[in-house]
Amino acid sequence: MEGVTFPPDRPLINVSQAAPVDPPPEGMRQAIAEAALKDASAHLYGPVLGLPDLRSELAAKTSRIYGGTIREGQVAITAGCNQAFCAITATLAAPGDEVILPTPWYFNHKMWLDMSGVKAVPLPCGAGLLPDPDQAKALITPATRAIVLVSPNNPCGVEYPAPLLRAFYDLAKAHGIALIVDETYRDFHAAPDAPHDLFSDPDWDSTLIQLYSFSKAYRLTGHRVGAALTSPARLAQVEKFLDTVTICPNQLGQRAALWGMRNLDQWLAGERDEILARRTAMETGTLPGWDLLGCGAYFGYFRHPFDLPSDELAPKLVRDAGILALPGTMFRPASDPAGGHEMRIAFANIDSQGIADLFARLRGFAP
Amino acid sequence: MEGVTFPPDRPLINVSQAAPVDPPPEGMRQAIAEAALKDASAHLYGPVLGLPDLRSELAAKTSRIYGGTIREGQVAITAGCNQAFCAITATLAAPGDEVILPTPWYFNHKMWLDMSGVKAVPLPCGAGLLPDPDQAKALITPATRAIVLVSPNNPCGVEYPAPLLRAFYDLAKAHGIALIVDETYRDFHAAPDAPHDLFSDPDWDSTLIQLYSFSKAYRLTGHRVGAALTSPARLAQVEKFLDTVTICPNQLGQRAALWGMRNLDQWLAGERDEILARRTAMETGTLPGWDLLGCGAYFGYFRHPFDLPSDELAPKLVRDAGILALPGTMFRPASDPAGGHEMRIAFANIDSQGIADLFARLRGFAP
Repeated sequence: MEGVTFPPDRPLINVSQAAPVDPPPEGMRQAIAEAALKDASAHLYGPVLGLPDLRSELAAKTSRIYGGTIREGQVAITAGCNQAFCAITATLAAPGDEVILPTPWYFNHKMWLDMSGVKAVPLPCGAGLLPDPDQAKALITPATRAIVLVSPNNPCGVEYPAPLLRAFYDLAKAHGIALIVDETYRDFHAAPDAPHDLFSDPDWDSTLIQLYSFSKAYRLTGHRVGAALTSPARLAQVEKFLDTVTICPNQLGQRAALWGMRNLDQWLAGERDEILARRTAMETGTLPGWDLLGCGAYFGYFRHPFDLPSDELAPKLVRDAGILALPGTMFRPASDPAGGHEMRIAFANIDSQGIADLFARLRGFAP
Repeated sequence: MEGVTFPPDRPLINVSQAAPVDPPPEGMRQAIAEAALKDASAHLYGPVLGLPDLRSELAAKTSRIYGGTIREGQVAITAGCNQAFCAITATLAAPGDEVILPTPWYFNHKMWLDMSGVKAVPLPCGAGLLPDPDQAKALITPATRAIVLVSPNNPCGVEYPAPLLRAFYDLAKAHGIALIVDETYRDFHAAPDAPHDLFSDPDWDSTLIQLYSFSKAYRLTGHRVGAALTSPARLAQVEKFLDTVTICPNQLGQRAALWGMRNLDQWLAGERDEILARRTAMETGTLPGWDLLGCGAYFGYFRHPFDLPSDELAPKLVRDAGILALPGTMFRPASDPAGGHEMRIAFANIDSQGIADLFARLRGFAP
């Protein structure tokens, strides 16, 4: 915020960004440097749908995590997970078509649908910030092309239970529409089991489309590497989109992601432990008046106690408390008054002590 | 081509790709490796419109080359030059709008317009494969949003003379539409002078939009770094598109491009000399019956002498002569019969001897 200064004894606490601020571990950086020096192909155009080794590694890892069989030909690598969403929806929905998004929604999904002339149909989440398949069913029209879920959720943090994901899958399948599940944060899922069993359906790829990102797991946000898992037939359409927009995902980033999958399982387990510890600090901290509606992945999603819309509260929090967080108004349609009462706290970049400091500041704050 | 083998004494000559096949020079690769090891920010999200240093370096360099004043705030860095085109046209044209493309056209431009529901209006080039501003004027309707020129041209190689570019600029300005000039190959322009003087117009950015790529100059195709130069107001719209689709250009590629601009001027001059020598070999080689309609940048564009459509000729050339080149049908609307008589030869990856070999094979070939 222009003109705002933060005293040394109360530096800005930035809980706005859904991204790690530390670089990847040393071994990964060395692997990238080595590829830059020794692998000529790392500087040249590659296949539109990504490095074959990376596609097959992700296929194998996804099969291991979720059960079922995912093949290399069902995986596309993209320039980040947002591009995966753009490419996938371009193959599904034309202007005038409809896509159902639970609210609070991930605003990039909403923005891309707007740009594409596709109508985003809000599905307000109920208790526990979970979407209801029956309510979704009532929103399906002949123009509906897909339902998009994000789990663990951005902005709410909530992990959708496996049976709920199965219910949405069955609903989508029954209506011949796609179920897109964005699992960017799946590496920080609290449950030790698979987040769902949808890949075990032998023809999963006629309904399910999974989106994934290497950015959060391996701290590769600046490299832009994501993925989409779907049918080979849809990937043939995705390929046309990607060929037209970026030709291929950048090559060094893909090599980094591949190295990460092959070498960083144990390191990633430690990262997950740390994120889960922060989540616990969020859930157990004392913050009278603030309701923690959802928590998980990188996010705590709160109902705030003030008589002030969240988009006016947010700048006051920066100025008067040195806290930068995003208002709920960013995650809901303008017509939905709930956003005014909500704030998202992204805790990927503050540890348990930082969360305690944040809560202390919030306890002392009144607008 | 599946099942085709190439004997050792007649290996495949691949003249299909508009891309270098060698990696960037050693110094560049070391600079990338160093950034990967020592610059933490090279792994993390950066500004949506690109690294400020890269934007200002390109602004300064463009000012130097073309005259006039280009500011950092008029430059966006994109994930390759194709994405620059996508982002720019998304800010200009809605479904149903029209954009004028000279034919033969660059097929990625055509494909993106198709995907966006924007009508590509073909402007057939005349003598010397140059587009005619008067003919373009006759195609302008109330739905026209832009004219797109590629100079040096892909697929034709032709360098548009500065006065022709000025005439198109005046035409666009008079009609309140944009003139997009894709100058991906400008570093291999044969003339020593500036390719045009349009940036010297103080309000160039209300009409002209220049696209540029770092891929060809510095052999960075696998890094996906391009640029768009336009008004700050339009960049504010471009920013929304890019933020939604890729969040930011990849960081290592941007650092590579910046290092290249700061350190490789002399090396690039040598690259240009080599490309110009190949161009001379193309222009002076003996190829009876084949008409060289255009030549420059990486491309020679030919009228072939055979009674066979080029899209049938192309696979025969692979099978019977070991030559992979793209047929003219890829660069014109299906309704335009000229494409059937044309072939594009991309000579970025064959030297003068390779061009002599290619011509020898073509002289011995009949379908």
